Amino acid sequence: MSYLDKLADIRHFIFDVDGVLTNGLLHVQENGELLRQMHTRDGYALKAALEQKFAVTIITGGNSQGVIKRLNGLGITHIYSGIHHKLKTLEELVHNHNLDLSTVAYMGDDLPDYECMRAVHLAACPSDAAMEIKTISQYISPVKGGEGCVRDLIEKVLKAQNKWKIE
Amino acid sequence: MSYLDKLADIRHFIFDVDGVLTNGLLHVQENGELLRQMHTRDGYALKAALEQKFAVTIITGGNSQGVIKRLNGLGITHIYSGIHHKLKTLEELVHNHNLDLSTVAYMGDDLPDYECMRAVHLAACPSDAAMEIKTISQYISPVKGGEGCVRDLIEKVLKAQNKWKIE
Amino acid sequence: MSYLDKLADIRHFIFDVDGVLTNGLLHVQENGELLRQMHTRDGYALKAALEQKFAVTIITGGNSQGVIKRLNGLGITHIYSGIHHKLKTLEELVHNHNLDLSTVAYMGDDLPDYECMRAVHLAACPSDAAMEIKTISQYISPVKGGEGCVRDLIEKVLKAQNKWKIE
Amino acid sequence: MSYLDKLADIRHFIFDVDGVLTNGLLHVQENGELLRQMHTRDGYALKAALEQKFAVTIITGGNSQGVIKRLNGLGITHIYSGIHHKLKTLEELVHNHNLDLSTVAYMGDDLPDYECMRAVHLAACPSDAAMEIKTISQYISPVKGGEGCVRDLIEKVLKAQNKWKIE
Repeated sequence: MSYLDKLADIRHFIFDVDGVLTNGLLHVQENGELLRQMHTRDGYALKAALEQKFAVTIITGGNSQGVIKRLNGLGITHIYSGIHHKLKTLEELVHNHNLDLSTVAYMGDDLPDYECMRAVHLAACPSDAAMEIKTISQYISPVKGGEGCVRDLIEKVLKAQNKWKIE
Repeated sequence: MSYLDKLADIRHFIFDVDGVLTNGLLHVQENGELLRQMHTRDGYALKAALEQKFAVTIITGGNSQGVIKRLNGLGITHIYSGIHHKLKTLEELVHNHNLDLSTVAYMGDDLPDYECMRAVHLAACPSDAAMEIKTISQYISPVKGGEGCVRDLIEKVLKAQNKWKIE
Repeated sequence: MSYLDKLADIRHFIFDVDGVLTNGLLHVQENGELLRQMHTRDGYALKAALEQKFAVTIITGGNSQGVIKRLNGLGITHIYSGIHHKLKTLEELVHNHNLDLSTVAYMGDDLPDYECMRAVHLAACPSDAAMEIKTISQYISPVKGGEGCVRDLIEKVLKAQNKWKIE
Repeated sequence: MSYLDKLADIRHFIFDVDGVLTNGLLHVQENGELLRQMHTRDGYALKAALEQKFAVTIITGGNSQGVIKRLNGLGITHIYSGIHHKLKTLEELVHNHNLDLSTVAYMGDDLPDYECMRAVHLAACPSDAAMEIKTISQYISPVKGGEGCVRDLIEKVLKAQNKWKIE
């Protein structure tokens, strides 16, 4: 089954933060805080997905208040941060919140995302993902992490469903 | 009509911020503030345009006090920020401030700029603009957003009008 | 002896900071502080190396509390900062801490790393290292400093020893 | 006269900041402060030049206390900031401080550097300098501004004079 056929099935997006919604860089502050960079075009697409009634969930190993505030500002409220075993979080979503994995697109970039990406319907990654992640992805975006790979995936899904609107 | 022919008609520049005057990256602070990066060479060109009596207007969906201060420091005072419907702002400029659209070059990078770019004389975009924006642009700069695409456009217009001075 | 043969011998990693664990950029704050950027994928690999009982030591000419806190957070405690003569530090590790140079991989990018890299078993560098450093490196990573060259080296060593685990 | 022949004559380096010692990006803070990024490898080379008794002068249109502190920390004390007419500053150095232009290498990237670069012995620029600046440069570094172009120029001059030392 081609990833193109799967695009029509997606109702739920799950994203990793570092290396997907960011370029993986951590700006190290002298007090130990780690700041990230996010892309406006990803933000635009996340809002568009929510407006079209897609669910958006974030599962991240990191723990940045700034990232949470930014995502909240875009309308995203399902954010699981400081997660070391992401598959466990995914399974809890299935069991406690009736998440239907056959409707999920998951975009990750590195080994902590590996098991989740094996479990969902459509596994996607940025162009600079780890080799093992590329190997199991049905869709490898031409765009790097933090440079709009989230936008690229959302745009592909919404266009396949005729839900991508020109302003 | 080639974009080259339009260069001579421009008296007014309108710029988007994120993805045009910046590379689209938002530096996420822990308190939720979003910081941007701007390029010195764009700043040089904006000052040169003002010195040559061009009008410069900014229309942005964002809302950054830092960006406004930076632009004020360059001499730009017509800044519309936090704008969700940019076309409405453009129309108000036409109706209330006698903006003549046949003299306007507008540079944008993404869908919120789409309608404005259809309305003006010369629609321009950075090399990494969204596909739909490239499709309707008469001029696609070879330069990316935040890396001097604003300088590139201003320089082209001022040179066409013999107003680009070597210090 | 090919660098591939040396991978099996490594028990100890030594890394420079600027240009290796960072891209060499210093974010200059108005108070004179210099902030760095580090990559999440390097952090993942450093933790994996420690979990597999490799020793990890940092020798840097810089002096950033933020970098030290970030490295501490990853579990690295052997950090020598503000070092002007790195070879002297390396020799003290040999003489006072029984460091066995025939088990050491050292990754550096510039002339202050030169003498140490001549002394160790496996000298490695990022793709954008100084020319003299590339000349004496047995392994030149295809990855730039700060973009995952540390991950690349650790991954190569751990895979050669069958210690690289998919989550 | 080739730029290679001029390398032996240089005793004095003059550098612009934005676009030369930085990549031209300004990190816009909410309070209006503009932060810059500088490269460790440029810093290494500037210290090496001073140790070999070269004079190093900075002439910049910007006005960043952080940049001044960083440069002071490297040992550079001749810093002219907030300069709008750089040629005037250069002429004052000639008349009041006996600067001998036939010993000067000047690296700039944009039009405010134009006149100074016409006046000195060796005009150099980064690979991403403005077109007019490239046209008058005897040496166009293969390296971009802020990514080590200063190191590249200093290294070339010191090597030509047999003053570039490994460690």
